Amino acid sequence: MKAATLVDAGTMEVRTREQPEPGPSEVLVEVRNVGICGSDVHWYDHGRMGDRTVDEPLVLGHESAGRVVETGRDVVDVAVGDAVAIEPGIPCEQCDYCRSGRYNLCPDVAFMATPGTDGAFREYVAWPADYVHTLPPSVSTREGALCEPVSVGIQAVRRADVEVGDTVLVTGAGPIGLLAMDVARAAGAANIAVVDIIPAKLERAADRGADLAIDNREADVAAAVRDEFGAGVDVAIEATGSPPAIESALEAPRPDGTAVLVGLAPNETVPVDTFELVRRQVDVRGSYRFANTYSTAISLLEAGRIDAAGTIDVELPIDRIGDAFERAKEPDVVKGMITMD
Amino acid sequence: MKAATLVDAGTMEVRTREQPEPGPSEVLVEVRNVGICGSDVHWYDHGRMGDRTVDEPLVLGHESAGRVVETGRDVVDVAVGDAVAIEPGIPCEQCDYCRSGRYNLCPDVAFMATPGTDGAFREYVAWPADYVHTLPPSVSTREGALCEPVSVGIQAVRRADVEVGDTVLVTGAGPIGLLAMDVARAAGAANIAVVDIIPAKLERAADRGADLAIDNREADVAAAVRDEFGAGVDVAIEATGSPPAIESALEAPRPDGTAVLVGLAPNETVPVDTFELVRRQVDVRGSYRFANTYSTAISLLEAGRIDAAGTIDVELPIDRIGDAFERAKEPDVVKGMITMD
Amino acid sequence: MKAATLVDAGTMEVRTREQPEPGPSEVLVEVRNVGICGSDVHWYDHGRMGDRTVDEPLVLGHESAGRVVETGRDVVDVAVGDAVAIEPGIPCEQCDYCRSGRYNLCPDVAFMATPGTDGAFREYVAWPADYVHTLPPSVSTREGALCEPVSVGIQAVRRADVEVGDTVLVTGAGPIGLLAMDVARAAGAANIAVVDIIPAKLERAADRGADLAIDNREADVAAAVRDEFGAGVDVAIEATGSPPAIESALEAPRPDGTAVLVGLAPNETVPVDTFELVRRQVDVRGSYRFANTYSTAISLLEAGRIDAAGTIDVELPIDRIGDAFERAKEPDVVKGMITMD
Amino acid sequence: MKAATLVDAGTMEVRTREQPEPGPSEVLVEVRNVGICGSDVHWYDHGRMGDRTVDEPLVLGHESAGRVVETGRDVVDVAVGDAVAIEPGIPCEQCDYCRSGRYNLCPDVAFMATPGTDGAFREYVAWPADYVHTLPPSVSTREGALCEPVSVGIQAVRRADVEVGDTVLVTGAGPIGLLAMDVARAAGAANIAVVDIIPAKLERAADRGADLAIDNREADVAAAVRDEFGAGVDVAIEATGSPPAIESALEAPRPDGTAVLVGLAPNETVPVDTFELVRRQVDVRGSYRFANTYSTAISLLEAGRIDAAGTIDVELPIDRIGDAFERAKEPDVVKGMITMD
Repeated sequence: MKAATLVDAGTMEVRTREQPEPGPSEVLVEVRNVGICGSDVHWYDHGRMGDRTVDEPLVLGHESAGRVVETGRDVVDVAVGDAVAIEPGIPCEQCDYCRSGRYNLCPDVAFMATPGTDGAFREYVAWPADYVHTLPPSVSTREGALCEPVSVGIQAVRRADVEVGDTVLVTGAGPIGLLAMDVARAAGAANIAVVDIIPAKLERAADRGADLAIDNREADVAAAVRDEFGAGVDVAIEATGSPPAIESALEAPRPDGTAVLVGLAPNETVPVDTFELVRRQVDVRGSYRFANTYSTAISLLEAGRIDAAGTIDVELPIDRIGDAFERAKEPDVVKGMITMD
Repeated sequence: MKAATLVDAGTMEVRTREQPEPGPSEVLVEVRNVGICGSDVHWYDHGRMGDRTVDEPLVLGHESAGRVVETGRDVVDVAVGDAVAIEPGIPCEQCDYCRSGRYNLCPDVAFMATPGTDGAFREYVAWPADYVHTLPPSVSTREGALCEPVSVGIQAVRRADVEVGDTVLVTGAGPIGLLAMDVARAAGAANIAVVDIIPAKLERAADRGADLAIDNREADVAAAVRDEFGAGVDVAIEATGSPPAIESALEAPRPDGTAVLVGLAPNETVPVDTFELVRRQVDVRGSYRFANTYSTAISLLEAGRIDAAGTIDVELPIDRIGDAFERAKEPDVVKGMITMD
Repeated sequence: MKAATLVDAGTMEVRTREQPEPGPSEVLVEVRNVGICGSDVHWYDHGRMGDRTVDEPLVLGHESAGRVVETGRDVVDVAVGDAVAIEPGIPCEQCDYCRSGRYNLCPDVAFMATPGTDGAFREYVAWPADYVHTLPPSVSTREGALCEPVSVGIQAVRRADVEVGDTVLVTGAGPIGLLAMDVARAAGAANIAVVDIIPAKLERAADRGADLAIDNREADVAAAVRDEFGAGVDVAIEATGSPPAIESALEAPRPDGTAVLVGLAPNETVPVDTFELVRRQVDVRGSYRFANTYSTAISLLEAGRIDAAGTIDVELPIDRIGDAFERAKEPDVVKGMITMD
Repeated sequence: MKAATLVDAGTMEVRTREQPEPGPSEVLVEVRNVGICGSDVHWYDHGRMGDRTVDEPLVLGHESAGRVVETGRDVVDVAVGDAVAIEPGIPCEQCDYCRSGRYNLCPDVAFMATPGTDGAFREYVAWPADYVHTLPPSVSTREGALCEPVSVGIQAVRRADVEVGDTVLVTGAGPIGLLAMDVARAAGAANIAVVDIIPAKLERAADRGADLAIDNREADVAAAVRDEFGAGVDVAIEATGSPPAIESALEAPRPDGTAVLVGLAPNETVPVDTFELVRRQVDVRGSYRFANTYSTAISLLEAGRIDAAGTIDVELPIDRIGDAFERAKEPDVVKGMITMD
């Protein structure tokens, strides 16, 4: 089978690999669609993430869906022919975090497209049946692949405790920001402001229903929010990892409001005015990956409450994965996707 | 009556003032005990706090208790002769924060010892009956005055959601830190570590039952905690406002753990590793003053679960308030108190 | 002014009363629209509710909106000419429940249309400015009057902690049930089943978007829900007070699910299988009236996420209030409303 | 090895069975202590529980601790010689309940001493290493066996959200009630009332620190609580399953208070005044078994905050298990235990 393999920073090759065989509790998935995540681009550009490095050739891609073509002998809930979204992390199921329902924090998780665990930019993936999720007929694998970033949005909205009627700020109009915005709306957000520094992305957010679009280079976000909504936001969701956006996300909430941090900003610290966090009694909550989100993601897609397909700007076959990565870096592009023939 | 009055930064005078008369829904309290808070010392030293300045002579002191000597005509729940603790903030009771039970965040609160609202370093205070709390016979006014810092500790422990069996870190072995430690223990904390930079205060914390005392100048707090307890803490309570202590409080929690910030550090920002907050999915929660805490404080004092009296190191009459403030600044002194004759 | 007055069980007279004058912190509202609640009909039919009796002539009606025609001298946030919804309960603002944000449980609340507090079936109401809520231009007073039953729905959904993607059962397709259904949808409910015993009301629920409509006389609700959705519901909202519906609402939730009880069933007990509540670890939560809901109700109406107007089947002037009450009792009628000329 | 085997209702025989061999991820535990639970007595007396029947000879006992004498080849965290408490349920680790941290609700759990899964009244048990918990030196296996009922108490207290300063009612002064009382105290309960109908058990509760002991046959529990504490309780924990106690537990909470149901009452319904649950906005929460409690139980035992040993009234060797069961049924006996030689 074909597999797009990162061999070194900046060098990805489509190689032929042996097709995997599913173990007794695994299924073999013929991959159809794989999204390109910002972290894939980061691995591709730098060959490292924080203190983890790519020492062996690594297949990237962790936003994937496809069709089941074979099932292991112990598999009962998934059948050949099923369209499935693949949940990319396999937690240990044994540690305190797994047992208490927070498997996103499992220290021994095997997560696609991190060193030691190949990702999904390949024709076939063998994966535990427990971590593939059947898609209903109305959800395509093209959308199903995006259950992964939708899940990041769901985790953020859950961490934020968005309540019906809330005013929400989202910093970053990339895929996570736009999908988190959709999830927040589905969860009852009455007013949503979106922050970015790329005019085209701000327009995109407005087209998707943002009530207010703020350019972080030109406006004081907290002030703009108060001007528009009469008070600070109930919830800010930070989806960039960029220090100026983080500062805006911490300043925007009203007293007793919440800022959820989703974006990862490696190798930088952010100067935080902790006096203000105390005085306004703000909650700042990290939100890492996701746990127990796929069924929710699928039902939101099925109900048409999330426009996942509308984030896709670039769609190329695996043989053009290099082009796809280059295009995915363009400032106006929200989501790139590899689609198998 | 006598009233200790801050006339300018560094200048406090005991002056004679007219004794107040209680309004229809107020009581007149003959003040017995008033604690000296770090914020009183800050006002005394600087004549300002953040952007608020003392322009008119101001009576400091907001940790007070005494005996009711007169009641307004509409007062029904408090009687002459009652020993009472005075809750120092009078919220507006009308705004969204008041109506939703978070009156500590009321923008129009009148809080003792802030410009516009005289504090309690005086012989008599007229105060709304709704904001004085009757003390049972077993709780002295000396302890009752400390319902205020105990309340700060209760608010922090509530914000932290301390659960039975939790491991807790407290940064700062001053009055708030030591009392928050007592409250955390009462709320079920199984192991408590305390951080300070004054050896005498660390000893004090250990004598009061801390399981681990860490000098922040000598040890990596997060590492010390993991060495001792096998994992990061469930909850960190930051009670200093000092940047190095805040950094320790943010590093010490386990994944999905919580850091509550209580200490106020005006005019400084703290460099925060937000990558780590996301990756460990930590909650950082500001905790400001308190709401609906006095009855809990009184029942904890009554049950002997809080050693409030044991924090008092200096106790002087109002005529020696200058000495009391100077003593309160000594590094080994936890709590100073003015006690009326 | 005209006021429809309940003089005895079954006897309502439109009498002339003196127009009220607003106190210093009150506004005078020229009433435009007043909904007829099931409790109004109950008072009208029986002259009592539980152990409370109507001994003095009482004006009914607590779902009201109108236009401000005069303001007291201390009123600042509301102006003459404003369209407002009137929140019908005035809590004491002093008790533990008021101070902790649960003023719906205030034992000293003055609530419209209960003995001692006249309701809104009259031309003018003087009411504290703090308990009237300005309506934006896009929300009519006709809809604004229904902020009250919408609020009951919001309280239920908050008590239920409805989360995005949840499956929800609502028992009762009357005004509370239908509006609670809208609020649950706005809060992210992915699938909603509605239970009633009147076919026309079930059709109404289906027309308003219910995914499943169940006749409680013909089907085992818990089984029907499992058949349709594959599992018990995440949340059941009981909006009838009728014992068979309560039983269905307790049986329908999945393990660790929640049933919120809103409907009031005076003078009856319901046989509950507590073994099942334990084994499935279900939460059963009472939900009483509402607190801090009006701004949310208004923003949901403004955003078009609640079809309040669509519940109104009968609309008559105050002179025909007797007819309106009779019509409101018809099984197919969801909401009756009195509209002033 | 010896194994006490229930062969029919009322007939238990100590038989010789083959000693089990641990699988690769299991340990072999030489059992030291096994508590007798009310459910063991129920199986013994009736040979059934609800709709489950004992068709094959069954070893009872699910409150056990012992010493590891052999480990499977994949076991890393437990060593030969370790004293361990055995957690009696092995969940599937795959279902939605397991993945979301609520493995007590796993429909496929294998739970000791229920048909299909032998319990611990035998000399050796082979058990997954993941479900045995190492005891520190200061906690004996005699206490460690009681981690199980302590866990039931912890689950109840967590479900109840007991907060520091709360007033708590416990119905039932049997092992679950007394241990839940200890856990509630450890979690900050300021006042605790205990209800029973056996005077000796009420005395026992008072000796263990209950602030109020109420005989449910002689007093109106809700009234007695209000008389003593001035208001309804914040939390009631129902640990009997008996209808009169359940009624008391539902009546005792203050408005917005909570009743947690732990006791199982098969084959009976309880008449519930749902009007009152709504009007007082009470939460009624089932609490079933436990999840993620053993480490907390062990740290509470280690800290001396739970008097587990003090519940043991009868202690006999396995050869006298029949006598032990008879003694365990005596009304004054709280906890019986089988202790291996």
